[in-house]
Amino acid sequence: MSNDDNNQDNLVIFMPSGRREGVEPGTSLLDAARNMGVEIESICGGKLTCGKCKVRIEDGVFQKHGITSSPNNVTPPSEKEQKLLERMNSTDYRLSCQCFVQGDVLAFVPEEARAHKQIIRKTATDRVIDINPAVRKVYVEVDRASLGEHRGDWGRLQDSLAQQWDLHNLTIDWLVLRRLQAILRDENWAVTVTVWQDREVIDVQAGYQEGTYGLAVDIGSTTIAGYLCDLRTGEVIATESTMNPQITYGEDLMSRVSFAMTDTKGLDKMHKAVLKALNSLAAKAAAQIDLKARDIQDAVFVGNTTMTHILLGINPIELGGAPFALATRDGLDVKARELGVRLNEGAYVHILPSEAGHVGGDNVSALIAEEPYKQEGEQILMVDVGTNAEITLGNKDKMYSASSPTGPAFEGAQIAYGMRAAPGAIERVRIDPETKVGRFKVIGEERWSTDWDLSEEAADFERPAYLATGICGSGIIEVIAEMFLVGILNPDGRFNSALQSDRVVWEGRTGKYILATGEQTRTGEPIFVTQDDIRAIQLAKAALYAGCKLLMRQAKIDHVDRIVLAGAFGSFIDTKYAMVLGLIPDCDLEKVYAVGNAAGDGARIALLNKTKREEAQNIAEWVTYIETAVDPNFQDEFVAAIAIPNANDAFPHLKGVLPENRTTVENSAGGGGRRRRKARKSRG
Amino acid sequence: MSNDDNNQDNLVIFMPSGRREGVEPGTSLLDAARNMGVEIESICGGKLTCGKCKVRIEDGVFQKHGITSSPNNVTPPSEKEQKLLERMNSTDYRLSCQCFVQGDVLAFVPEEARAHKQIIRKTATDRVIDINPAVRKVYVEVDRASLGEHRGDWGRLQDSLAQQWDLHNLTIDWLVLRRLQAILRDENWAVTVTVWQDREVIDVQAGYQEGTYGLAVDIGSTTIAGYLCDLRTGEVIATESTMNPQITYGEDLMSRVSFAMTDTKGLDKMHKAVLKALNSLAAKAAAQIDLKARDIQDAVFVGNTTMTHILLGINPIELGGAPFALATRDGLDVKARELGVRLNEGAYVHILPSEAGHVGGDNVSALIAEEPYKQEGEQILMVDVGTNAEITLGNKDKMYSASSPTGPAFEGAQIAYGMRAAPGAIERVRIDPETKVGRFKVIGEERWSTDWDLSEEAADFERPAYLATGICGSGIIEVIAEMFLVGILNPDGRFNSALQSDRVVWEGRTGKYILATGEQTRTGEPIFVTQDDIRAIQLAKAALYAGCKLLMRQAKIDHVDRIVLAGAFGSFIDTKYAMVLGLIPDCDLEKVYAVGNAAGDGARIALLNKTKREEAQNIAEWVTYIETAVDPNFQDEFVAAIAIPNANDAFPHLKGVLPENRTTVENSAGGGGRRRRKARKSRG
Repeated sequence: MSNDDNNQDNLVIFMPSGRREGVEPGTSLLDAARNMGVEIESICGGKLTCGKCKVRIEDGVFQKHGITSSPNNVTPPSEKEQKLLERMNSTDYRLSCQCFVQGDVLAFVPEEARAHKQIIRKTATDRVIDINPAVRKVYVEVDRASLGEHRGDWGRLQDSLAQQWDLHNLTIDWLVLRRLQAILRDENWAVTVTVWQDREVIDVQAGYQEGTYGLAVDIGSTTIAGYLCDLRTGEVIATESTMNPQITYGEDLMSRVSFAMTDTKGLDKMHKAVLKALNSLAAKAAAQIDLKARDIQDAVFVGNTTMTHILLGINPIELGGAPFALATRDGLDVKARELGVRLNEGAYVHILPSEAGHVGGDNVSALIAEEPYKQEGEQILMVDVGTNAEITLGNKDKMYSASSPTGPAFEGAQIAYGMRAAPGAIERVRIDPETKVGRFKVIGEERWSTDWDLSEEAADFERPAYLATGICGSGIIEVIAEMFLVGILNPDGRFNSALQSDRVVWEGRTGKYILATGEQTRTGEPIFVTQDDIRAIQLAKAALYAGCKLLMRQAKIDHVDRIVLAGAFGSFIDTKYAMVLGLIPDCDLEKVYAVGNAAGDGARIALLNKTKREEAQNIAEWVTYIETAVDPNFQDEFVAAIAIPNANDAFPHLKGVLPENRTTVENSAGGGGRRRRKARKSRG
Repeated sequence: MSNDDNNQDNLVIFMPSGRREGVEPGTSLLDAARNMGVEIESICGGKLTCGKCKVRIEDGVFQKHGITSSPNNVTPPSEKEQKLLERMNSTDYRLSCQCFVQGDVLAFVPEEARAHKQIIRKTATDRVIDINPAVRKVYVEVDRASLGEHRGDWGRLQDSLAQQWDLHNLTIDWLVLRRLQAILRDENWAVTVTVWQDREVIDVQAGYQEGTYGLAVDIGSTTIAGYLCDLRTGEVIATESTMNPQITYGEDLMSRVSFAMTDTKGLDKMHKAVLKALNSLAAKAAAQIDLKARDIQDAVFVGNTTMTHILLGINPIELGGAPFALATRDGLDVKARELGVRLNEGAYVHILPSEAGHVGGDNVSALIAEEPYKQEGEQILMVDVGTNAEITLGNKDKMYSASSPTGPAFEGAQIAYGMRAAPGAIERVRIDPETKVGRFKVIGEERWSTDWDLSEEAADFERPAYLATGICGSGIIEVIAEMFLVGILNPDGRFNSALQSDRVVWEGRTGKYILATGEQTRTGEPIFVTQDDIRAIQLAKAALYAGCKLLMRQAKIDHVDRIVLAGAFGSFIDTKYAMVLGLIPDCDLEKVYAVGNAAGDGARIALLNKTKREEAQNIAEWVTYIETAVDPNFQDEFVAAIAIPNANDAFPHLKGVLPENRTTVENSAGGGGRRRRKARKSRG
């Protein structure tokens, strides 16, 4: 009944993939599947211990597939197999390693038996990731030691790994070698071996053991985020984050670099601080699911270049000045224990490669998560805003990257009432075009400020917990954009002196806007938006925009097709307001989207799939890095980008966003700008 | 004038090798030499910093070589070269990397410029060892960091190593990476890089640096011996030895194994003790020549299996009982710092492979030093006597090895007046055949005891320092052999009751021999040789001899062509007496020789030549190990070997050694043996 050339063969079809092939009688279904490229999970290698390779042999005539299949068309189960299937509540299944073909077979491979399961990340662009981790566990039965045979326990284990798993030329971590003899004898010479990169035995456990775990960590300057993953399913089974304790030595990167330069123990202090945080994070993540840190057998760390240098105990001094030389651009594997990270004794930490002095593994990580370098045609701009903004632009033909010194204004620093995105921070703002009164939402409270009932709570003589305490990054973007949209600000960023409003307070020639009144705040004092705040945001957004323009100039394009906002800031800001203020170049707003912590996603992807580590290395070398600090065009672009844009040729997509009256204000604003420059000149 | 086909070529001859070849004009002499297989030292790679590649360009007509050579037949020296040659007091030389051929040249390569220098070991068989160490230093000039170039410092160093030294796919020790940036900038981007196995950068030093040092250590159960070597010349530049501090936990191997089994902290104590000793030894050896332990960049450690297990922190429990399973038979590379050995930060320790449970890396080491496996035809027996004797037999066709439990008697233990080979120990003995009075020599005093003038020194009321304090291993062999030769002992090892001598004291039926009188000893009490001493030596030598016979039986041979005595014991005993007592099988005495610490030599050879490490691995797997403990023939051979042999068929070479009268005693001795057994029977 076989469709194949060889009449002796039986036809075997695997569902749901539908792969079909003629198979020699006597072949096990597992071998048949492997030959056909159907991946079926198997850990024990036919030892009848893991029960992973189960399939259902279908019974009936399957006309669509041209096959008549029957459970009798494979050899019957042994008693041992039957017992195992009963224990697994899977009596309608067979173990594919135990059924040998003796007729045509249509076999269904259930989801849980499919090897290399795939995880799907839910973002704007759904993506599928193959599971192919750098560490894997294999179960082996080892020849017991006997007189007259002198290979040694490690020699015998090597031979078993070669015979049973086709693993050759392995080395063994010498600390595992220390424990090997006792473990081999513990469960009768049956062990589960953890192999790293098919190269090194990093752990041996007695008997049959399941569960392989890895930790992906994004080491941000401010926040360290960890994702504990099941390396077999790809699932994130625990997440944990913590403040980067280095923050006590400097808020931004440059202040940490200079701390390492000026304090002889500075590097050591910051190095130890981050290690301590990582160890605590790993232990906490593991504890969430009743594991220990020692159960974590692989790790991928990403961070900006300063973070990875300090993590490795490398003085970041060279990153503090031109030519911004990295100690290494390459990705790196370091034994966790050597680094001082407490995971499994034999585990390695993989640190993703960097691109250049100011574009580190976190950006490479975001790239391998978003894969703009696989994009055909469309020009993709990816922006990750932090104290420095990392910007990449391009597609599969060519990619550029740059780092732009936006400074910490977007994170609420340098803002009079600025604060981190924490409870009490104003994050959303709308201003009434008529009254110029702002309403807002604070983190931790769902109601808009206009729905708060302050009178009843004030009666308690206690200020409610949700009152505003400051403005966070997304709040400052929105309030300034709204102030512009309702005419409080001119396009040059100065307060509109022609406007009469009790919400704008003038001190001499400088205005400030009352966003929250005293009764709306924890302190009882109003929250203002000052002229200095607006200037700080203008400088930050001009730096970001100038970086984007610089890359567009390099790529010789005048518009981008898609803008990806990576990182926490990108997730919280409203893309409309970002474009109103001119943080990002013009783009169809529907094609501007946030992807969250892409650096963390990339770390996770590199943890789950070792080939992505090689891809990261290739991409890091392939991307063309543009040094904004020395590019003569950067300064021009920067100066040109300080004003708030209008719906002109450069921003056609703002046409539907800006109210008519604001586009007309532009002329006077332009004049204002000129006036200001004149004024300065006369003063100078 | 060229002899070559191509008339354009110039003839170049290098002396003293006499290699000649036609060379294209414009070729540097260094390149010409390399193409012709003439190894000339060069560290800086033509950078005019090392001055290693000097040659003398001969001036004149060399009829024998058919060449007219002149210094003008190469390009003239630059000012920089001239200055360097002046500084080196070598103005009659040229640097071969700087002279480009423009005529026929006869160049003399001085000894110090010859690469891969060879060291010659002075033993019975002179041997030449190629210098090809696992670590080497190369000088590189690295591209300086510049804006717009993002390879990173390590990337730039890798490129320089590839271009200037053809070293590819290197990794870097991450602790070296930590220091890399500062070092590169220290001397203007010129560095000396230490590369391990052409695979890993283990050190980087600023500027041009010479001096590469390695440490070979033989970790004996009793003594740890270290040899600090110059890895460029192969010379031993310092030796240092120390007691193995584990001795406080047990004199012999089995008592250490049982200490590890019974005391939960036993392994850890012994592991730490040996590390402490190794660290002190390394530091002291380095200090001898004003170096630090951190200047040692490579190490090879050898030891018996128990020693290497404990060194690695592996519990030796499995070596304590059948089937005597090793944790690993393979050789091993471990970072010294991971092991806890303080050498250069990036240095590796290589531990030579073992053969089987009781034949360790020290025996493999002795094998690669003596290379019996390269011998054609002759059957070579190699014996290394310690608490266990390691025995190997064979030639290039086949080799056998065994371990025989001789016990510590040969080392002076279990002997009433036994002691280690230290000052005061009797090491040589001659007994007057007539008077039966023994004369002897003690370690630390050149005169025989008969030449001591005790009267004058006694007058000082101080006992002279050289008086005897005990008997060491070689002394006990000689005194018992002499006692037999002069008729004090019967061949069965019992005192000759028919002999009348005031040197033999009888206590009931048991005799003891006065070797030293009270006035010849430090204590003032006589030194005796007791019946128990003789029994202990008989058991030890029977075990050794039985092991040898077992291997001969395996090899199906009834005589050996050559006996190599390895180890300290073999160096101090007189081979004649060893054969008289029957420690070793019959052999032409001229072909029995001691090679000293062959295990230490082998460690040194593996340190100096990395290919010998591979050879060691192959030999360890190739040798056929015979387990004496379970071989049924061993016990028979052992019992048969307890008596002192006579000049019979089994020992034809004793014919010239034994006095006539002793060969005739044999019959009565045989009778004595029989009588003894009878007596026991009647008592039993």
